[in-house]
Amino acid sequence: MSAADNLCKRRVVALCGGIGGAKLALGLSRLLGGDLMVVVNTGDDFDHLGLAISPDLDTVMYTLAGLDDPQRGWGRRDETWTFMAALAALGGETWFALGDGDLATHVERTRRRAAGETLSAVTADFCRRLGIAARVLPMSDDGVRTRLRTDAGWLDFQDYFVRRRCAPRVLEVTYDGAASARPHADVLAALADPRLRAVVICPSNPFLSIEPILAVAGLREAIAHAAAPVTAVSPIIGARAVKGPTAKMMSELGVEVSATAVARRYRDLLDGYVLDRADAGEAAELGIPVTAAHTLMASLTDREELARQVLASADALTKATA
Amino acid sequence: MSAADNLCKRRVVALCGGIGGAKLALGLSRLLGGDLMVVVNTGDDFDHLGLAISPDLDTVMYTLAGLDDPQRGWGRRDETWTFMAALAALGGETWFALGDGDLATHVERTRRRAAGETLSAVTADFCRRLGIAARVLPMSDDGVRTRLRTDAGWLDFQDYFVRRRCAPRVLEVTYDGAASARPHADVLAALADPRLRAVVICPSNPFLSIEPILAVAGLREAIAHAAAPVTAVSPIIGARAVKGPTAKMMSELGVEVSATAVARRYRDLLDGYVLDRADAGEAAELGIPVTAAHTLMASLTDREELARQVLASADALTKATA
Repeated sequence: MSAADNLCKRRVVALCGGIGGAKLALGLSRLLGGDLMVVVNTGDDFDHLGLAISPDLDTVMYTLAGLDDPQRGWGRRDETWTFMAALAALGGETWFALGDGDLATHVERTRRRAAGETLSAVTADFCRRLGIAARVLPMSDDGVRTRLRTDAGWLDFQDYFVRRRCAPRVLEVTYDGAASARPHADVLAALADPRLRAVVICPSNPFLSIEPILAVAGLREAIAHAAAPVTAVSPIIGARAVKGPTAKMMSELGVEVSATAVARRYRDLLDGYVLDRADAGEAAELGIPVTAAHTLMASLTDREELARQVLASADALTKATA
Repeated sequence: MSAADNLCKRRVVALCGGIGGAKLALGLSRLLGGDLMVVVNTGDDFDHLGLAISPDLDTVMYTLAGLDDPQRGWGRRDETWTFMAALAALGGETWFALGDGDLATHVERTRRRAAGETLSAVTADFCRRLGIAARVLPMSDDGVRTRLRTDAGWLDFQDYFVRRRCAPRVLEVTYDGAASARPHADVLAALADPRLRAVVICPSNPFLSIEPILAVAGLREAIAHAAAPVTAVSPIIGARAVKGPTAKMMSELGVEVSATAVARRYRDLLDGYVLDRADAGEAAELGIPVTAAHTLMASLTDREELARQVLASADALTKATA
């Protein structure tokens, strides 16, 4: 751990989607505090009931602030649901569940965006007020929309994910607006910083969480040119996804459901890969150092321990190339 | 009661503001059901946190639906406040309390208005869904804003009423937009209907609730020309207002604080006046039939009984002029 200790003042940039990635981001934030920058997928963002909703940003924010609901896996703990019950009585749309406390995030963000603040500025202020030391940034302040071509036609992400519960067969995924969306200047600066310690691709759905981030104009290139090692963590354990439609989508899109197949999607960027011990036999073909770890992050200790191993493996890559 | 019974199929139009007026509207609605049309002040409406809020419409709607909070006197019963607590943590504006269930009304109304529905259409649908038999209409679908010139300058209504708790001294009250606001066609039709049974001016603040309604272009004239008797109910009992700033404002505006002084403000419209037994000695000078009643509506029985007396007094006027 001495290499890591020597490097502990240097920044780590993590790319992350919702719940799976947020768990590792929490582990990293407990080790790194303000030295962590989390770049979060906003391809799932949508307008609902006139409110600007950023599901992955909120999941990361609630998780880092200790406000997340550990049972449900989304939204806030100690939540109440009076709004939804009253909305149902008025004939409003109830397919997307909004808790009463969660609503404050959406209402206040919508108000500030309408007043001209950027999504990154609103996010930074929310995180500061919630006592989050890490820097949390949307992948872009420009709108990007993940859309899916399915056997039920083209669908917006939330329509597919929440309303239709991932039932349609996915044939193609696009990130509308990504080609003209700009990454935040601070993200580009962090990636270009020679003191950058590591780039960590969190264990999130490649199609829905990581690739929208990499599709933002210039971001993939900035990561490829970063002086620091780039390490990804597999969201697949033993040919299954921990949560969500990752495995189903991989299969529908003709991608082998395996930790190795996920790594292959960003192979050009990767200097190292962390996968589950269950998959330790895999991935020799990737031709990069592979670390086997316990990747199912059930407890806070698991999250910190995985974060520690991810950083150690990245630091070992730095040492090896130094 | 035979006159009233004979007339029970004919419509009553009530003008009303917030809580005081809503109590009588509830009494009337229990006697009249679908034969009651309630025309509600919208001069207090405002945009807050990006939401379109109509406090008097909501008070009337919640009261008629049995959803009102009888203790607090505003908002909904069985309310939760998770939103406000979360909003405070995010640095949002918390001077105007919005309950979680109440929020559904504002969010859904704002969404439907943005989609092009009129305030009256949204209100009608909400009332239908909440099982309200009476027809509830905003005084206009066009925006009217009650503003107050005070010793603290010109103030928007909610700034004066909620944020400053009615502390500034009121020098003048205006209804911006009223001169160009149009009444709803159904209100004009009801007032012009020869079968109209009565117009009831509920016991609401004259400056803040009734006069904004009467200021809507053509509405005062339509009431004056109605074939039915016009009866007002005093919001003043023994030189005091039951609730709110009515007495303080009357005094600041140089108006005597009395039931008679309220009646004098609409004297040209009135065919009869109902005041409290405590003020029974007053109002002979008005030159119209005056009915003394128990006007403090503490219980549901009180509300129904006052409504019965108001209707009986109006019906007596009809009989007298018939």
